[in-house]
Amino acid sequence: MEIKVMKNILYANQKLAEENRALFNDKKITSINVMASPGAGKTSVILKTMEALRGEVGVAVIEGDIASSIDAEKIDSLGIPVVQINTGGGCHLDANMIKEAVGDLRVKDGSVLFIENVGNLVCPSSFDLGEGIKMVIASVPEGHDKPYKYTSMFEAADAIILNKVDLMPYIDFDRDSFYKGIKALNEKAPVFEISCRTGEGIDEFVKWLKDNRTK
Amino acid sequence: MEIKVMKNILYANQKLAEENRALFNDKKITSINVMASPGAGKTSVILKTMEALRGEVGVAVIEGDIASSIDAEKIDSLGIPVVQINTGGGCHLDANMIKEAVGDLRVKDGSVLFIENVGNLVCPSSFDLGEGIKMVIASVPEGHDKPYKYTSMFEAADAIILNKVDLMPYIDFDRDSFYKGIKALNEKAPVFEISCRTGEGIDEFVKWLKDNRTK
Repeated sequence: MEIKVMKNILYANQKLAEENRALFNDKKITSINVMASPGAGKTSVILKTMEALRGEVGVAVIEGDIASSIDAEKIDSLGIPVVQINTGGGCHLDANMIKEAVGDLRVKDGSVLFIENVGNLVCPSSFDLGEGIKMVIASVPEGHDKPYKYTSMFEAADAIILNKVDLMPYIDFDRDSFYKGIKALNEKAPVFEISCRTGEGIDEFVKWLKDNRTK
Repeated sequence: MEIKVMKNILYANQKLAEENRALFNDKKITSINVMASPGAGKTSVILKTMEALRGEVGVAVIEGDIASSIDAEKIDSLGIPVVQINTGGGCHLDANMIKEAVGDLRVKDGSVLFIENVGNLVCPSSFDLGEGIKMVIASVPEGHDKPYKYTSMFEAADAIILNKVDLMPYIDFDRDSFYKGIKALNEKAPVFEISCRTGEGIDEFVKWLKDNRTK
């Protein structure tokens, strides 16, 4: 019973995701589904990337949270178009939420649209939003074993960021083990080591993003 | 439809949770449901607490993970009785999994039983396992805003640990904001600031745990 209902939900979600995807392609919107554990630095990565992109391309953000609008306020204060989705307890964003938010945002053609998912390294990986790029952010203090434990997230990623590398000297983080875990699941996704605190590595990620925009 | 099925699932879970609770009370087992984001330090906190308790009381661990047995192996290597539950994609433990694991473990009367939930600050809060103590571990690098965003988790907690306080000098963590967020949701739960790396604060938590054992 539970499984059948889950299949129906995922099927309905997939249909709406395809509509979103068609819209993004039609309007040449580069859409990035940003997934990570709570506190891995999703909003910080988005803000740093936005700073680098602004002036060159249009930017917009959909902020997903269970409660609060803390992150949307941060983004709004920089004058970047943003819509907050509060899931009211829900553990992930779904395609219908994105469809409605995109309508509210009136994202310009050719923009880069970040979709910040709920902080959760499990559930969001099951729900296609119609995004062009699935991005997973891991962070050094979470430890090097995350790819071994949260396999579907790392398997699905088109790009992986390892954030907070400035904390490396203070933490027992085995880089080799982290990369080995990723490569076992996902040979294609590039991994960007960055620090939103120091700015290290942001440029390389921004370059990759520009090269991989929806055209 | 989705809501109705969810209610049925929660009702069935609740019944099994009550059975677990009756067993724990009957056998005077202190059961602690340990919930946190991925990488907040659940296994480290359990290991440090076990070290302090061993010799005095019986200890046992149920390890919940989506995949892998990395954490169970760490615990087993110390000679502590442990059972691994792999949820195979599932984002939380449920009461039925605990019922089966407790049977396998043969937990001794009067023991302290840690149940390490899946790393997820959302879904586990909805599922009663029959535990005596719900414990939430936050960690400094996740940031001070977690209580504002993951409200149901902090609301439900009987005890809260703030781990990795040794990283405080390297992170913009607003302690006042963190405590204010917790107090708005939960006036009762004590908060223990600890570092599994340096050992700071472990003693106070262990003392609290001893004082709050199931008798």
